Amino acid sequence: MNKTKIAIVGASGYSGQELVRLLLGHPHAEITQFTSRQYAGKPVSDIFPRFRGRITASFIEPKDIAADVVFLALPHGVAAEFAVPLLAKGMKVLDLSADFRLKSAAVYKEFYDHDHPAPELLAKAVYGLPELHREKIKSAQLIACPGCYPTSIILGTVPALRNKLIDPSTIIASSMSGVSGAGRKATEDFLFCECNESARAYGIPKHRHLSEIEEQLGAKLTFIPHLIPLNRGIESTIIASLAGKPDNVLAAYREFYRGERFVRVTDALPDTKNVESSNYCDISVRVDARTNRLIISSAIDNLTKGAAGQAVQCLNLVCGYPESAGLL
Amino acid sequence: MNKTKIAIVGASGYSGQELVRLLLGHPHAEITQFTSRQYAGKPVSDIFPRFRGRITASFIEPKDIAADVVFLALPHGVAAEFAVPLLAKGMKVLDLSADFRLKSAAVYKEFYDHDHPAPELLAKAVYGLPELHREKIKSAQLIACPGCYPTSIILGTVPALRNKLIDPSTIIASSMSGVSGAGRKATEDFLFCECNESARAYGIPKHRHLSEIEEQLGAKLTFIPHLIPLNRGIESTIIASLAGKPDNVLAAYREFYRGERFVRVTDALPDTKNVESSNYCDISVRVDARTNRLIISSAIDNLTKGAAGQAVQCLNLVCGYPESAGLL
Amino acid sequence: MNKTKIAIVGASGYSGQELVRLLLGHPHAEITQFTSRQYAGKPVSDIFPRFRGRITASFIEPKDIAADVVFLALPHGVAAEFAVPLLAKGMKVLDLSADFRLKSAAVYKEFYDHDHPAPELLAKAVYGLPELHREKIKSAQLIACPGCYPTSIILGTVPALRNKLIDPSTIIASSMSGVSGAGRKATEDFLFCECNESARAYGIPKHRHLSEIEEQLGAKLTFIPHLIPLNRGIESTIIASLAGKPDNVLAAYREFYRGERFVRVTDALPDTKNVESSNYCDISVRVDARTNRLIISSAIDNLTKGAAGQAVQCLNLVCGYPESAGLL
Amino acid sequence: MNKTKIAIVGASGYSGQELVRLLLGHPHAEITQFTSRQYAGKPVSDIFPRFRGRITASFIEPKDIAADVVFLALPHGVAAEFAVPLLAKGMKVLDLSADFRLKSAAVYKEFYDHDHPAPELLAKAVYGLPELHREKIKSAQLIACPGCYPTSIILGTVPALRNKLIDPSTIIASSMSGVSGAGRKATEDFLFCECNESARAYGIPKHRHLSEIEEQLGAKLTFIPHLIPLNRGIESTIIASLAGKPDNVLAAYREFYRGERFVRVTDALPDTKNVESSNYCDISVRVDARTNRLIISSAIDNLTKGAAGQAVQCLNLVCGYPESAGLL
Repeated sequence: MNKTKIAIVGASGYSGQELVRLLLGHPHAEITQFTSRQYAGKPVSDIFPRFRGRITASFIEPKDIAADVVFLALPHGVAAEFAVPLLAKGMKVLDLSADFRLKSAAVYKEFYDHDHPAPELLAKAVYGLPELHREKIKSAQLIACPGCYPTSIILGTVPALRNKLIDPSTIIASSMSGVSGAGRKATEDFLFCECNESARAYGIPKHRHLSEIEEQLGAKLTFIPHLIPLNRGIESTIIASLAGKPDNVLAAYREFYRGERFVRVTDALPDTKNVESSNYCDISVRVDARTNRLIISSAIDNLTKGAAGQAVQCLNLVCGYPESAGLL
Repeated sequence: MNKTKIAIVGASGYSGQELVRLLLGHPHAEITQFTSRQYAGKPVSDIFPRFRGRITASFIEPKDIAADVVFLALPHGVAAEFAVPLLAKGMKVLDLSADFRLKSAAVYKEFYDHDHPAPELLAKAVYGLPELHREKIKSAQLIACPGCYPTSIILGTVPALRNKLIDPSTIIASSMSGVSGAGRKATEDFLFCECNESARAYGIPKHRHLSEIEEQLGAKLTFIPHLIPLNRGIESTIIASLAGKPDNVLAAYREFYRGERFVRVTDALPDTKNVESSNYCDISVRVDARTNRLIISSAIDNLTKGAAGQAVQCLNLVCGYPESAGLL
Repeated sequence: MNKTKIAIVGASGYSGQELVRLLLGHPHAEITQFTSRQYAGKPVSDIFPRFRGRITASFIEPKDIAADVVFLALPHGVAAEFAVPLLAKGMKVLDLSADFRLKSAAVYKEFYDHDHPAPELLAKAVYGLPELHREKIKSAQLIACPGCYPTSIILGTVPALRNKLIDPSTIIASSMSGVSGAGRKATEDFLFCECNESARAYGIPKHRHLSEIEEQLGAKLTFIPHLIPLNRGIESTIIASLAGKPDNVLAAYREFYRGERFVRVTDALPDTKNVESSNYCDISVRVDARTNRLIISSAIDNLTKGAAGQAVQCLNLVCGYPESAGLL
Repeated sequence: MNKTKIAIVGASGYSGQELVRLLLGHPHAEITQFTSRQYAGKPVSDIFPRFRGRITASFIEPKDIAADVVFLALPHGVAAEFAVPLLAKGMKVLDLSADFRLKSAAVYKEFYDHDHPAPELLAKAVYGLPELHREKIKSAQLIACPGCYPTSIILGTVPALRNKLIDPSTIIASSMSGVSGAGRKATEDFLFCECNESARAYGIPKHRHLSEIEEQLGAKLTFIPHLIPLNRGIESTIIASLAGKPDNVLAAYREFYRGERFVRVTDALPDTKNVESSNYCDISVRVDARTNRLIISSAIDNLTKGAAGQAVQCLNLVCGYPESAGLL
């Protein structure tokens, strides 16, 4: 069987690197093009020495992309421009940026401070969270892969909401992220000595990811991201008032995710190290009977389930491969 | 002027080490005794090589303590036993354990799972948070130095409560702590490879520190501690529903802490690295107008303002020294 | 084709965990038994939560092992005891401990301070470094997988020695290792706060690994290991006086390792992050013309090429599988 | 007594920050001017939030410096330009850059790739290593504070050389440095995710610091620096062939440094964590009788004894203060 031909546009960041790692081990797909304006002409393995001996290709200019499926690992705003002609040529597009995650161009403008570059595509795009939108993903041409914080928070919260276990007006999500989430750009704030031995909240009260979390959950919430000295990993702690006195919340979560390959509902509280470099989302819950609140903890690798891994999971759905192909 | 003679009981842990560091630089106090059952007879600088050349003393058995002021850096349950005879001899006792932080022996038993070893002393003890109890501390013989999480959460929340800016029934505190908070005992969970690249919630919903937080705040709350890969530092994020539409919360905080030497109310969100090895508590606030909640972030060094530094601050109050002596 | 049945004895340490990770992805092998005295009866995924959902087996007592190939991930001294009956039953044994790495029982005693528990097996064992002993490994029943430091130092030094580029009496190796090399035992020295922000030499001048390095290289050398705050990774810097004025040392290294799948001779100096979780050994060299010395730098992941990955590479040779099966 | 007035030029880097930290606690000196082209006009505490509440000054343009003593914390090449007019006005200058560390303008050009900007000052400058040049420092107007690597290597090696314990032609120094040594500039190589879980050699065989090491030691050597994931700290391991069979090398080291306040010769091998934020240099030695080599390990904090602390030590000598003023 011929392998699916993959182009990765903007392959030089951390999500791009993780995509490459995963696709190199994919049994049914092969990367045929790597593009990077910054590094065009240079061997991919010069920029990512960990792939030396495994990739001989060089980065190309992003103008002549030709592939079955194109992954866009670009900054928001830029991805939409690229998507338009690729879609017109009939290619499938998996976008890792924020450009197509929202249905509303107005909300996009509110959170991203500029007009949406291709609002006509918003209705067409499918939010690439397989656990919630599996069937739509299978037939989509344009998939908006979820953000890292949203993946951890949405997967953690949806079972409680759908089972009406919590009051939707009381949701608070406090997350901690590793530094790779900030990307690979040279900024003083993300120097080793500024991040090591540092823990800090940022981007409150209106981090951009909040928009897609609220759209997917259908609830308004408070979201507080924190930066901590990890390379990879996000832990999200979600707190909400219980609606009534539910019996066995953990069992409800297990039932909700029954059959899901990449969500593990666990007795123990999640730890980012247990999902490192994997596509799993680990979730556990605790009832605080004293205050009648539910406490949910979820952990993912921000580069895998929070970005590249989830994109590959979507690729598998789009192409009809086993959902875990290349991911275990 | 003669220096105040200090004994440190249980000086071999991280809080003990920080006490030693601070007191070595104190202009009016000198450590005359270091006790440690485990290391009795060994030079202090063998256990803490960073003090080589600065301390020639050896650890002694804790039975013959004689000093003006005794710091207890012992596990909870053990400290109370030591305190009783020292108090009887008229020494001042600054206890860094949890033994005397609560007024209620019943709450102690609920959270610590055993009867309080010296309940008759609970009424006598003063909670050693100078920003709230300065006058009582000055004349106390027994001071219960607050826990690290409680220090960061109480200092962050009290101004909002006292100014009636928030609904006390809605408080949620989510904290992140460095690993030194777990102490210096050899446990697999705190090995380097188990903590590095790891972020995890633990001890929910009823961490022991919750009891003193609630007693000091006079409110029931949800508290979620997390362990992250820092040596030192705690960031606490506290969220509560606003009572009304307050004008300028930051100004109210500045007013509340006016004249306080060790609380800095800042525009920027706090970062643990800015309080590392210092006795400061940095606090900032954000109003989330969309959900009408207040978000408070506070940062301390868990070993300094969260333990040894605050104890020295209390020492200064007890002895009538400038409150920042030895702390800047 | 039936998969090779694998038993892992002592699977609860870091090398054992890495073995499990690699073998779970191996196309021709399956782990059928996990043994651990300490954890017998407990699900493997309780001890290694990262494997939840992928392993349902529990640890068993190590007494009834039955498999085609047995990996011993045990402390030295203990492994030999286990090997004897397994070999007698005709199983193949890949030992990750130091027990069978030396040919001389006298040298073993000199470096390990006790008599060798099964000296009669020393002649039978093959040193499991495929780049040097590929043919012997293929037909061996007992394979002594090399230590982590030795792998990085031997691979880095052998090309210079075989090509007579350096004076063998002048070799000095200075290595830096991540903390997982110390194993998963609860020891104060390896607590997070003792290793983070710490760099230190240790075990000089006669670290146990020196014995196998010297035996493999046929030269006496100075070896200085250092512990640094990484989870995984070893960088070894090897310095020796040049014999003559060699033309192109890098080319000689490239030639020496031509066709080797897991050694990458690079222009750039190696970085442990580029070999993390991979079976590669990256090597580069620099000539110091001012002092006429050769400087060699090599980097491996101590748990992969330095332990479990190399053991799987040996398994592949023993079983006639492609040498990189399960390793890319 | 009036305090010595200090200006810090280029106070916005890590060495500048450490200078500020130390001088804030100095009993006889006060910082009266902070200059920074980049941040002129901004409050110092905006750039270094850890000093909030302790410094109210803003950065000024470096053109109108007026102080008793000026510290230059500038890049090499730039410092010399600043020094010339300050010296002409009679101020004392303590330069933390490399500009005045060498006696030979030719060697400067060889290692720094450009002509020395003020060669006439080279003879006038004193190398600010108090343990070697105490008397000259006392009367100097221009002091070249040593580099971080050189401090650790020179202090580690000089006792062996002066006592003729080693063959000077055989010295090899392999060092590991924390990332603050690379400064505070936004460069991709020093991002958190590029340094965390990374260990790498760099700058061989001719790192710029080699020039001053060789000049001070009067010997040609091989120097291999490595970058490891620490904020602060350098460990240097120095290896050389023994000249003869010396009796008690450690005793010779103790004798050499008798009375030195900031060098600790220890039985145990040094650990960077024991010298963190202190001005100590810890040194120990081991004889490798098998190869007749001496192994020396020394540890410093690169920002303290390796930069700002040593500069303050020189300040104390210049001003006639106790040598440890502000440093303990």
